[in-house]
Amino acid sequence: MSNNNQVVLKHYVTGFPKESDLFLKTATVELKIPHGCNGAVLVKNMYLSCDPYLINHMKKVEGNYADSFTPGSVSFFPLKLQPIVGYGVSRVVDSSNPNFKKGDLIWGITSWEEYTFIKFPGTFCKIQDTEVPLSYYTGILGMPGMTAYAGFYEVCSPRKGETVFISAASGAIGQLVGQFAKLMGCYVVGSAGSKDKVDLLKNKLGFDNAFNYKEEQDLNAALKRYFPDGIDIYFENVGGKMLDAVLLNMRLHGRIAMCGMISQSNLDQPEGVHNLFYLITKRIRMEGFVVNDYYHHYPKFLDIVLPLIKEGKITYIEDIAESLESAPGALIGLFSGRNVGKQVVAVARE
Amino acid sequence: MSNNNQVVLKHYVTGFPKESDLFLKTATVELKIPHGCNGAVLVKNMYLSCDPYLINHMKKVEGNYADSFTPGSVSFFPLKLQPIVGYGVSRVVDSSNPNFKKGDLIWGITSWEEYTFIKFPGTFCKIQDTEVPLSYYTGILGMPGMTAYAGFYEVCSPRKGETVFISAASGAIGQLVGQFAKLMGCYVVGSAGSKDKVDLLKNKLGFDNAFNYKEEQDLNAALKRYFPDGIDIYFENVGGKMLDAVLLNMRLHGRIAMCGMISQSNLDQPEGVHNLFYLITKRIRMEGFVVNDYYHHYPKFLDIVLPLIKEGKITYIEDIAESLESAPGALIGLFSGRNVGKQVVAVARE
Repeated sequence: MSNNNQVVLKHYVTGFPKESDLFLKTATVELKIPHGCNGAVLVKNMYLSCDPYLINHMKKVEGNYADSFTPGSVSFFPLKLQPIVGYGVSRVVDSSNPNFKKGDLIWGITSWEEYTFIKFPGTFCKIQDTEVPLSYYTGILGMPGMTAYAGFYEVCSPRKGETVFISAASGAIGQLVGQFAKLMGCYVVGSAGSKDKVDLLKNKLGFDNAFNYKEEQDLNAALKRYFPDGIDIYFENVGGKMLDAVLLNMRLHGRIAMCGMISQSNLDQPEGVHNLFYLITKRIRMEGFVVNDYYHHYPKFLDIVLPLIKEGKITYIEDIAESLESAPGALIGLFSGRNVGKQVVAVARE
Repeated sequence: MSNNNQVVLKHYVTGFPKESDLFLKTATVELKIPHGCNGAVLVKNMYLSCDPYLINHMKKVEGNYADSFTPGSVSFFPLKLQPIVGYGVSRVVDSSNPNFKKGDLIWGITSWEEYTFIKFPGTFCKIQDTEVPLSYYTGILGMPGMTAYAGFYEVCSPRKGETVFISAASGAIGQLVGQFAKLMGCYVVGSAGSKDKVDLLKNKLGFDNAFNYKEEQDLNAALKRYFPDGIDIYFENVGGKMLDAVLLNMRLHGRIAMCGMISQSNLDQPEGVHNLFYLITKRIRMEGFVVNDYYHHYPKFLDIVLPLIKEGKITYIEDIAESLESAPGALIGLFSGRNVGKQVVAVARE
C-alpha cells in the first residue's frame, strides 16, 4: 500500500476558474493489480498535461467533448472522490495486459494523482523513443503536437507563400503550428499576451513577426499592420474579439481552423462574433476539429517530427511545474496566460 | 430616341432599407448603338431580379461582393445618375457584337431601366430553351438556381438520408435547395416567416416539414422538435439568432453553407453569434460561398435542371411585380419578407 495524492474538482465551475475549485486529497493505493483483474495496468504518473480543454470538463454544460468530471465537495468526505483526468506520461508498475509490461513508458489519458489503476489501457501509446525529453509526450509528441499537425496540414490546406496568423501562438499548439508553417514557406505572425512570449516567438521560434494583443487598442489595426494584404490562414485558439478582427482581415478563399477559444473560458455567456458575413463575401471556410479524429496519423507524425526535433529544426518550449501540489495552480494559470510555452506538471521525475 | 425610365439609388442606405431610398427618373435613350462602338449590345429589359445581395451595394461598407452603386440625390439633378444594376432577362434590340444578334434573349447583369446599353456583354448567357417561362432565368435557371445548386452539391457535401435545415426556405434559393435535398433522399425542414410560406413548403414544395420562425418563442426548442437527432446540413440564408440556435442543434461533422444573412440587412451592427464553440466540439465546417465561383458548372446545371422542370419533378414559385414603377417596393419588400417565392419585376412582357 502507498499514499496516493490526488487532485479533485470541488464543484462545477462557473465563470473564471479558480485554483480553489480544485483541491488535493490523499488516498491510498495498492501497488499491485488485484488478482483476477485481467487486461489492466497500474501506472506511476510522471508528467501531467495542462490543457485548455480541461476547463470544459470542469463545467456542467451541453455539447462538451466528453463527460464532465465528477465533482466532490469537502463536506462529502469520506465519499469516494475521483481525481480529474487528462493526458499524461506514465510508467507501468504492474500489468495484467499482454501489450504492456512493467517498466514500459506510455502516454494517454490518466488521472491527476500519483498512481492510477487503468482497467482498459487500450488507447495508451507505448513510448518507443526516449532520446527526447519524456515530458514531450504531453506536448510536441502528444495530443498538442498531433493537434497542431492535424489542424495545420489537414484542416488549413496550406500552400507555400501563404500568410498565416496564429493566436495564443506561444502555447502548446501555437508554437508548433507556426514552425510547421515556416517549414512550408509561409509568412507567419503570432499573437501572445506578454513581451516575453512575443520575444520567444520572434527570436526562438522563428516567427516572421509577433505582437502582444494586450498592448493593442485596435486588433483590426494591428492585423492590418502585420498583414497589409490579408490573412490566408488563421489558426484559432482564442475566439471572441480576436476572431472578429481576423474576419475583417481574411483574404478571399481563406481558411480558419477552429482549435480552441481560450478567451471565452472565463465567461458564463460567450462573446458575440459580429463579422461572420465576411465568411460569405470572402468565401471563407471555418472548420472546427478535434484531434481524436486524427490519431490514425500518429505513426506518420512521429516519423516526421522526431527527426525534426533531433536535427534542431523544431524547438519546443515547456513550462514545467514541479510536484502534484502545484498542479491546480498550473492548470488554472493557463486561463490567465501565466504559462510560457506548454504547461506541464512533473509529478515524478526518475 | 425613346424615354427610358430608371430606378436610381438616392443615397447610401444605413439601417433598414426603405422604398424612398430609391427613386424613379425618366431619361432618354437612342435605340441604336452609336456608330463605331463595336462589341456592344443594346437591350430591352424584360424581367429584373430582386435579390438580397443588392442591399450590400446600397450601403457604403468594406468587403462587399463588388462596388457600391452610385447614389444620386434629387437635388443634384440634372447630373447624370446611374440606375442600380442587377440580374435580369433582356432582349437584344441592337448589336455590334458578333456573339449576339437582334432578337436574342439573354440573361446577366443589366441595369434597372427599360433599355440598357451594354458595352461589354461578354458575361451574358444566351437563352436557348424558351419552353419554360422566361422569368425563370432570373430564378431557378439563373443566379439563384446556380447558387442553390453550387451551395447544396458543392459546399454541403450531402449524403442520402442526412437531415437538412434551410432558413428563408420559400425564397428564390431555399425552395430549390429543399427540392434538391429531397431528390437526394434527405429529410428536409424549412423555416419561413408566414403561414402561407409554411403551407407552400409543406404542400407544394415537398418539404418534410416547415415552421414559421416568427411564431416560435424559442428557436432552439423548435429545431429540437423537428430535428430530435440533430442537423447534418444547414443552408444559411438568414444569420443572427437562427444561426445561434442551429449551432446548438448541429450533429457531429455537420456542414453549414453560408449563402446569406438577410436578417442582418436592417442592422447597422450585425448581431453577435455566441455559439461558435460548437464548431469545435462538433467538428463543424462552416463555409461561405459566392455563386460567381461556380458558373463554369452552368451548362451541366441546365442539363440537370431543365428536364426536372419539364417533368414536373421540381416546382418554382415566383412573385412577379408588374412594371418598373413597382420595382423599388418589390426590392425593399424582400427585407421584410413580403414576397412569397422568388421576387421578380416584369418590366416588359412580350
